[in-house]
Amino acid sequence: MDLRLYGITDERFMGLKDIAEKVAAAIEGGVTVIQYRAKKKEAIDMYEEALKVREITKKYHIPFIVNDRVDLAIAVGADGVHVGQKDLPVSVVRKMVGESFIVGLSTHNLLEVERADRENVNYIGFGPIFLTNTKEKPDPVVGTKLLKEAVSVSTHPVVAIGGINSDNIREVLECKPAGVSVVRGIFQGDPYENAKKLREIIDAEMG
Amino acid sequence: MDLRLYGITDERFMGLKDIAEKVAAAIEGGVTVIQYRAKKKEAIDMYEEALKVREITKKYHIPFIVNDRVDLAIAVGADGVHVGQKDLPVSVVRKMVGESFIVGLSTHNLLEVERADRENVNYIGFGPIFLTNTKEKPDPVVGTKLLKEAVSVSTHPVVAIGGINSDNIREVLECKPAGVSVVRGIFQGDPYENAKKLREIIDAEMG
Repeated sequence: MDLRLYGITDERFMGLKDIAEKVAAAIEGGVTVIQYRAKKKEAIDMYEEALKVREITKKYHIPFIVNDRVDLAIAVGADGVHVGQKDLPVSVVRKMVGESFIVGLSTHNLLEVERADRENVNYIGFGPIFLTNTKEKPDPVVGTKLLKEAVSVSTHPVVAIGGINSDNIREVLECKPAGVSVVRGIFQGDPYENAKKLREIIDAEMG
Repeated sequence: MDLRLYGITDERFMGLKDIAEKVAAAIEGGVTVIQYRAKKKEAIDMYEEALKVREITKKYHIPFIVNDRVDLAIAVGADGVHVGQKDLPVSVVRKMVGESFIVGLSTHNLLEVERADRENVNYIGFGPIFLTNTKEKPDPVVGTKLLKEAVSVSTHPVVAIGGINSDNIREVLECKPAGVSVVRGIFQGDPYENAKKLREIIDAEMG
């Protein structure tokens, strides 16, 4: 799986009417994975939006991950699910989805990174690297120094997340993560232009 | 399935430490079905609590239903899932859980009751019959007159819910529902005594 530019949807920047169009633009700009994330929506609305994202990501052959809810991921035929430390345990999730499904796990410190090594996950998220106001209750900022350690410690691919934009992404890429995960930096404003700019830097830095 | 006295857990009246004990007391008192419901908890905490409820309900051979989340229901090995009008659609849920799983659906008016007739559900909830402060945003009160209509219209067993207690339960039972669903009326205070009192009235009225 190409984790280089991992785009995450956000209910503040899109809705049922434009989510397909915004995700398509982000993919055209260079996003390599899409995660559907919504924190304040009813399940029926999440289902309808996620179905649209499933359709678009299938068209572009881009892996589609659903945040938090395994049932929603299965219901829309996603390729994977991404869980946090307070969601259903990875071992329980893996039993439900089988071996061929992508399972990602958020980590926020080196202890969680080490613990994740004993879990059957396909990649881990690590962050927040920088200050972010995307999350209501963000975990403490980890910074790029810890990211570098996480990358060297983890046996899983590490995706850096949290406050990453075109100004600070080079500093992140120097730590050699498998990719960067971006919400606001892609979906606030023009997703095509945002993704294109980020992807150009990624391609230049990661080779 | 015996729906006569359908008890629903509530995070305000129990937690991980006493949920097993409270549910056991309610069952000893006469509850015939248990639903695990929590609206403000992290999935990991819901998982741990629901596992405890699963253990107790298995011991007593009482059907165990999980509210809202199909993934949690599957994860803890529940017997069923109960969804609302804004949760994942029943057709989608049924596809995930198969034919032998119990699927319940909340309805709040006769239109929803009629629509539910075309859905593959095992029972419907109908309410709120009376004013309730268990839910943060309760639907409009339906009253017992509409309950009587719902029972006569629906081809599914109808479980009455919302503000039912030992003072008003007779009025509800006169409408001939398959059962009554109770949260506060069982779990606030002594679950054994509460359930026993309700069950005595139910057995006397339903024969």
